[in-house]
Amino acid sequence: MNLPENVVCTKNADQELKNILDQHKGKVFVLADEHTEALCLPLLPSLAEKGAIVVRIQSGEENKNLNTLQQIWMQMGDNGGDRKSLFVNLGGGVIGDMGGLAASLFKRGIRFVNVPTTLLAQVDASCGGKLAVDFNNLKNEIGLFRNPDKVIISPEFLKSLPMEQIVSGMAEMIKHAVLYSEEYLDQISEFDPKKPDYDLLASLVETSVRIKNDFAGKDPTEKGIRKMLNLGHTIGHAVESYSFTTSTPLLHGEAVAIGIVSELFLSNKILHFPVQKMMRITNLIASTYKPYKIKYETYDELIALMTHDKKNTDGMINFSLMSDYGQFQIDQHCTKDDIYQSLSFYNQMNL
Amino acid sequence: MNLPENVVCTKNADQELKNILDQHKGKVFVLADEHTEALCLPLLPSLAEKGAIVVRIQSGEENKNLNTLQQIWMQMGDNGGDRKSLFVNLGGGVIGDMGGLAASLFKRGIRFVNVPTTLLAQVDASCGGKLAVDFNNLKNEIGLFRNPDKVIISPEFLKSLPMEQIVSGMAEMIKHAVLYSEEYLDQISEFDPKKPDYDLLASLVETSVRIKNDFAGKDPTEKGIRKMLNLGHTIGHAVESYSFTTSTPLLHGEAVAIGIVSELFLSNKILHFPVQKMMRITNLIASTYKPYKIKYETYDELIALMTHDKKNTDGMINFSLMSDYGQFQIDQHCTKDDIYQSLSFYNQMNL
Repeated sequence: MNLPENVVCTKNADQELKNILDQHKGKVFVLADEHTEALCLPLLPSLAEKGAIVVRIQSGEENKNLNTLQQIWMQMGDNGGDRKSLFVNLGGGVIGDMGGLAASLFKRGIRFVNVPTTLLAQVDASCGGKLAVDFNNLKNEIGLFRNPDKVIISPEFLKSLPMEQIVSGMAEMIKHAVLYSEEYLDQISEFDPKKPDYDLLASLVETSVRIKNDFAGKDPTEKGIRKMLNLGHTIGHAVESYSFTTSTPLLHGEAVAIGIVSELFLSNKILHFPVQKMMRITNLIASTYKPYKIKYETYDELIALMTHDKKNTDGMINFSLMSDYGQFQIDQHCTKDDIYQSLSFYNQMNL
Repeated sequence: MNLPENVVCTKNADQELKNILDQHKGKVFVLADEHTEALCLPLLPSLAEKGAIVVRIQSGEENKNLNTLQQIWMQMGDNGGDRKSLFVNLGGGVIGDMGGLAASLFKRGIRFVNVPTTLLAQVDASCGGKLAVDFNNLKNEIGLFRNPDKVIISPEFLKSLPMEQIVSGMAEMIKHAVLYSEEYLDQISEFDPKKPDYDLLASLVETSVRIKNDFAGKDPTEKGIRKMLNLGHTIGHAVESYSFTTSTPLLHGEAVAIGIVSELFLSNKILHFPVQKMMRITNLIASTYKPYKIKYETYDELIALMTHDKKNTDGMINFSLMSDYGQFQIDQHCTKDDIYQSLSFYNQMNL
């Protein structure tokens, strides 16, 4: 498994970025939210040396929409952005997805570099080129596929992350382990988010990026096996979207962890994923994530949200399911009753 | 010079479209405005036979914006559009540019077919893959490059066009002649928009598409010679944008005709485009287009609009200029005084 050509894993992000900036002739814009401007921008002094213009947006998935895109474009236009400008996305998945889309559409596309600063963004959004914003209450409804010119991944940024953000990012890593090997799950189990070993974490991140690249690289526009990266996301996205309408919104990884548990239940039911292995993963998730209750009276609404998932065609809900570690099937269909049971299986986990 | 692989010139658009629809398994959406729904949709009965869902938008460049894009996406989402849906753009340049962009971004991109129904769209927007909407008072500020899966060009649709639309489309054809050969200008001069010969027009359209493809195909993302297709557009776009703020908005081709005259003046001044040839083209435009007055007190505002043109880098206005038919230079810079003179040259033409 290789790293994508445009990804570099380093412990000195500023040096990597400086190499790019030294060769760049046009203006430089850096997209940041209030957190990354305060905590991450100081780790990249070469941006200030180059006179980079900071484009500021508010943090949060609820701002990953067309309104914020327009704010970004206004700031770029007002500050003389042109086709030769370079856009640096400094932040988590929201910044990377939305900033990449903003750059890809500004004057029909300018170069951009992603510096993912959350664990989730480093293991998930950093490669694969899926860019999007939410629209009409649907996640990632509007977007396109385009790879950043460079992705710079460094553990430096993770040291200022709250623990819940580290835990959220672990969900995608657990997914990668299910898709790849139980051995990788063993390694992840050694990492304790309460006492983070950042060297271990950097090595896990690199393994996850290699696994993701293996799936995404073979199928960039998601016609086939890349769909396996959606494991846990059909139910996870629905639970996440729904949670935004409540007083207890979930982080993306927290919702994906719920999705992994539910979809492993479906994997066991439909493809006979071994029950002991399912229970090991379920227990790891139960011990890592805070409990969450999916109310029975919301099940139908969740199924309606799943029906709108982009992966679907012909009105059927498409699942990506497992028969064992590394053994998978795309485009699996489940009955409404199966999905009900899978949600109840997750709820029982917390009893 | 070849036609692009995805373009077909026919006199039976419905048959070509039927071939595509017969092979398509998902839903079909057709984007139309009030004019094309009334005048063009009846010429394509295979759409109704296939149960295509009509997505309606209001005609007009002033609606080529992010608001209308959102209306399109809402209608697609509400009618069960998914990744396997096919989008048919039935209309002029606004429909083609905006519908192509809508399709390219909906759920990260679905297939789309363009059926250009105006002369301008047939000769200009039908190939090259430039998709965009206007933003922040700037034309085509937000967009991307993507080719339609198929473009179906037929003279059937031109028969219901008002004469001013035929005349508007001729500006791009005159531009193609300047870029290619005086011989092609001879052919265009034979066409009389007051007594349109649609067989002659269909043959001119095909020649123009071949010329455009020759430039765009060698340089799809407009780093070099494709910029020559912008002849007349640096000044033309500024005049067009400004006209929208007045009580006499111009059609795109009307503004481009003004731009061609002004930029041929600059071509003569800077690259010594022969004055007799410049006068022939200027006279053809003066006899074809209605007079328009560029007020002296708006010159500075027009220059400010030109400065915002996407073609520019480093704050300089980039012109694409000619030294003779078929002889061109990109990235030419002019003084403010040169531009003043070029606008006054156009104004004098109408005296």
